Amino acid sequence: MENKKVKRSEDYSEWYNNLVKNADLAEHSAVRGCMVIKPYGYAIWEKMQQELDRRFKATGHSNAYFPLFIPKSFLSKEASHVEGFAKECAVVTHYRLKTDEEGKGVIVDPEAKLEEELIVRPTSETIIWNTYKNWIQSYRDLPILLNQWANVVRWEMRTRLFLRTAEFLWQEGHTAHATSQEAIAETKQMLEVYADFAENVMAVPVIKGVKSANERFAGAIDTYCIEGMMQDGKALQMGTSHFLGQNFAKAFDVKFTSKEGKQDFVWATSWGVSTRLMGALIMAHSDDEGLVLPPSLAPIQVVIVPIYKTDEQLEALNAQANEIKSALEKRGISVKYDNRDTHKPGWKFAEYELKGVPVRLAMGPRDLENGTVEVARRDTKEKESLQIQGIDQKIEHLLDNIQQNIYQKALDFRDENITRVDSFEEFEKVLDDKGGFISAHWDGTPETEEKIKELTKATIRCIPLDAKEESGKCILTGAPSNRRVLFARAY
Amino acid sequence: MENKKVKRSEDYSEWYNNLVKNADLAEHSAVRGCMVIKPYGYAIWEKMQQELDRRFKATGHSNAYFPLFIPKSFLSKEASHVEGFAKECAVVTHYRLKTDEEGKGVIVDPEAKLEEELIVRPTSETIIWNTYKNWIQSYRDLPILLNQWANVVRWEMRTRLFLRTAEFLWQEGHTAHATSQEAIAETKQMLEVYADFAENVMAVPVIKGVKSANERFAGAIDTYCIEGMMQDGKALQMGTSHFLGQNFAKAFDVKFTSKEGKQDFVWATSWGVSTRLMGALIMAHSDDEGLVLPPSLAPIQVVIVPIYKTDEQLEALNAQANEIKSALEKRGISVKYDNRDTHKPGWKFAEYELKGVPVRLAMGPRDLENGTVEVARRDTKEKESLQIQGIDQKIEHLLDNIQQNIYQKALDFRDENITRVDSFEEFEKVLDDKGGFISAHWDGTPETEEKIKELTKATIRCIPLDAKEESGKCILTGAPSNRRVLFARAY
Repeated sequence: MENKKVKRSEDYSEWYNNLVKNADLAEHSAVRGCMVIKPYGYAIWEKMQQELDRRFKATGHSNAYFPLFIPKSFLSKEASHVEGFAKECAVVTHYRLKTDEEGKGVIVDPEAKLEEELIVRPTSETIIWNTYKNWIQSYRDLPILLNQWANVVRWEMRTRLFLRTAEFLWQEGHTAHATSQEAIAETKQMLEVYADFAENVMAVPVIKGVKSANERFAGAIDTYCIEGMMQDGKALQMGTSHFLGQNFAKAFDVKFTSKEGKQDFVWATSWGVSTRLMGALIMAHSDDEGLVLPPSLAPIQVVIVPIYKTDEQLEALNAQANEIKSALEKRGISVKYDNRDTHKPGWKFAEYELKGVPVRLAMGPRDLENGTVEVARRDTKEKESLQIQGIDQKIEHLLDNIQQNIYQKALDFRDENITRVDSFEEFEKVLDDKGGFISAHWDGTPETEEKIKELTKATIRCIPLDAKEESGKCILTGAPSNRRVLFARAY
Repeated sequence: MENKKVKRSEDYSEWYNNLVKNADLAEHSAVRGCMVIKPYGYAIWEKMQQELDRRFKATGHSNAYFPLFIPKSFLSKEASHVEGFAKECAVVTHYRLKTDEEGKGVIVDPEAKLEEELIVRPTSETIIWNTYKNWIQSYRDLPILLNQWANVVRWEMRTRLFLRTAEFLWQEGHTAHATSQEAIAETKQMLEVYADFAENVMAVPVIKGVKSANERFAGAIDTYCIEGMMQDGKALQMGTSHFLGQNFAKAFDVKFTSKEGKQDFVWATSWGVSTRLMGALIMAHSDDEGLVLPPSLAPIQVVIVPIYKTDEQLEALNAQANEIKSALEKRGISVKYDNRDTHKPGWKFAEYELKGVPVRLAMGPRDLENGTVEVARRDTKEKESLQIQGIDQKIEHLLDNIQQNIYQKALDFRDENITRVDSFEEFEKVLDDKGGFISAHWDGTPETEEKIKELTKATIRCIPLDAKEESGKCILTGAPSNRRVLFARAY
C-alpha cells in the first residue's frame, strides 16, 4: 500500500483525503459523488450504529422503514422544506430500459415515463408524515417514536468522502406528539443522546446549541445541534435535532383528538446523524501516522505481533499470544493476532498505526523468557514492557485510559481554540491567524450573519445552550446584543 | 384495531394480506409498489438480520457499502445480466427540480439532465465488480468476502407486501476467488448458511437444490436455492446463492496474477436473501388467529397479563409479574408485562395471539394465593397452570419446545405434500387437487419446462441436491431422464 505522507500541518485537506484512502476507509465510486465504504470503514460505522441504536431504543424508540422514493408533489407541501431540499436531488422519471434497436446497448424506454416523477429521498419528513396521517386519530395513538436507518441522496456538486457525498447513510428519527412541550422535550432529549454519543463513544467534545435562522433545517421551528472542532480549527456539525412544530402536520393534514375531545394538529420532531460522523472521527483525532481511534469504536482494539526468526520461536509465541488473546476476549476486548509470515514486524507496526488500532502488543523470544510483552499505545505512542501476568486487566484499564485521553486531548485543543473577540477587526484576525471558534456578539439578524459570511466565510455555528446573558454590541453593526454566539468556518 | 377474520381455508391470499395489515407488519405506501415496514414487522426483520449477519461474519465475511446508483452502461456489460435486470428498473435522468414559473409547485429542471442515466440498483454485481477491478491485482488480494445490507428496486407490476415489492431490503454477498473450486465451495457454503438459518431460526424446512436454466440468475453459471413450502402448498424461493464463474470478471476485466505468475480472470459468487423472508415466515406458520412466530424471531417472547378487579390486586400482581419478568430476562428472554388499564384481558389475549407472541402468562388473585400462573402457548393453544417456583427455567424449555414444534409441524406438512408422479395427467391432477411439490422426471430441456409452465403454471423449483439417480421418462415428452426434479406453483 502506497502511503503518501502528507502532514496535517502541510495540507490538512490532502492529509485527510490520503488517510481515508490509505486506511482503507472509503473511496470514490464510478458514480459521481457516491462513495464506496470499504470493510474497515464500514466496521467503524457499524460500531457507531450499534451504540446509537442502543441509545435510541433505551429512550423508547423503535425502528421502521419508509420508501426510498418521494412523489414530487409531496416535497411542495411544506413551503420552506421544498426550498431547502427540492433543488439538488435525484429524479426518477422512467421505469424501464429497452434494447436499443440501433445496437447501442440499452436506452431509456420513452413509453415508460412515470406520471409523476419520484425523488430519491433527501430526507423523509414528507413521506413519513403522509403515512402518519393514517396512523394518528387520537391522543391514544401518540407519541409515535420512530427511527429509520437508511440511505439518502442530495445532489452535492462538490463532494468529499464522508463529509459531503451525493449518497450517504444515516438515521433519521421522526416523532409525533400531542403537545408542543412534549415535542420540544423530545428534541432536546435526542440532542443529549447525540452529545453523549459524540463525547463518550467518539471521544469528540461538542458544543450544544441552537442554530440561527439561516442555518435552520428547512421546515423546522428550531434546529438544535452539536458542533465539534476539527484539528484544523474548523467546525463540523455532527448532529441535528429539529423541533418541527406543526409544520408537517399542517402540510399533510395530520390531526388528532385530544383527551378533552378537541381537534389539533400533531407536533413533530426529527433528528439525524450520518456517515459524516466518520469524517468527524477521523479529523478530530488522527495524526500524521494515520488513524487514531477511540477504543470504543475500534474494530480491532488490540493487535498482537510476534517477533521471531525460527519456526520454533514462532510456535512458542503462538501459544503465548493465543493465551493472551483469549484472556482479553473474555473481557470483551477485540483482538487480532497477526502472525502472517508474508509481512515483517515493522510493516505490521506501521499498518496498525495507520489503521488506528489503540493497543499493540509485541513479543519476541526474550519476552517469553522474561514473561513480558511490549505494550504500545497508539494515541501517545508510548511503549512499555509489562509482565504478562495479569495483562488482560492491565489492557482493559489501558483502553479506558486511552478513551479518556483521546477525549481530553480533543477537549483541551477545543477549549484553547475558542476565542472571545469584541471587534470585527479582531474577529477577522483571529479567524485567519488562529482559527477555531470565535465567541462574539451578533445583532440577531440574518442580514448581519449573511454579511459576515460573505466577508469571512465564517458562519454562526450555534447559539450555545449555556450562553450567558451579557450585554454587548454586534461586532459588525454595533447594534445591541445580549449574548455571545459561536462563529467558525465549517465543513 | 379492526381484524377482519378471513380464514386460511377460505381465501389464503386475503388471509395473508389481512394478517400483514392487522399484525402491524407492513402496509402499502403512497409510492406505487413500495411498502412501509412498520415497527413490529421491522423488529422481526432486525432479528433476522442479526442472526444472518452473525453467520456471515462467522464464515469470514465483512460488510461494506456500494452506491445506490449504477451507470446505465454498466448493466449492458454482462450480456445475460442486462436481459434479466435492465427491463423493469427505476431510472434517474435528472438531478434538479426548480420552481415552476407558472406556479405549479416544482418541476424537473430540463437543464439538469444527466449525461448518462443512472439506474437504482436492482442488484449490485456490476457496480461491485467495477470496483473490485481496482482492488485485485494478485492472488494475495483474494479472496474478497464481502456482504452488503441494502435496499434495491425492481419495478414490479404486480406487488404484494413482503413477497414482491418495487423496493425491498436485502443483503447481497459478493465474493471474489482465485479458483473455480473455491468459488463453488463458497456458493455451497452460503447455501448451507441460508438453510441453517431457515430451518433453525425461521423454523421453515427447506429443500436445497440447483435451479434449471430457466430460473437461473441472470449472469450466473449455476444458481443454488432453498425452497420452502407455504401452507397453501405453493413454493417460495427463500434464498439463492450463485456461482457466477468468470462472467463478471470478464465483463469488467478483472484479472489477477496467480502464485505461478499467470494472469487469469477472477471467479465470483453472489448470494442474497431479502424481506421476502418475512412473507415466508408469515405464510409457513401463521393461523386464523394471527401470526405464529418461532421464539427465536419473536420481538416479544413472553407476555404477562394481569387479571384483576381492584387496585390492591393489581399492586400484588405487579410485584409478582415483575419478579417473573426479571427472572426470565436474566435468561435472555424478552418479556412484556402489559398491565395497561385501558384494555381488558380478553382484548390483550387476542392482540398477542394476533402478534404471534409465543408464550402468554396470565395471573389473577387466586394464582397469587396458589403460587401459580396460567401458561398458554401460541403454537398449539394449549394452556396449563404451573407453579411459579422455577417458572423461568420451565419457560426457557417451553420456548425451545415451541421452536422445535413449529419446525416439526412445518416439516410434516411439507413432507406430506411432496408427491411423486409419473404421468402428466397425474401431474395436473395432483397440482390442482392437492398442490404442494411434485417430484417428477423431466427431459432437461428449457422448452419442456416452459411448456409445462404454460400448461400448468408450475415451474421447476429446483433439482434437489440429494436427488437420487433414477431412470425415468419425462412426464411431458417421455424423453429419458435420470433423476426427478421438484415442480410447484410458486410465489
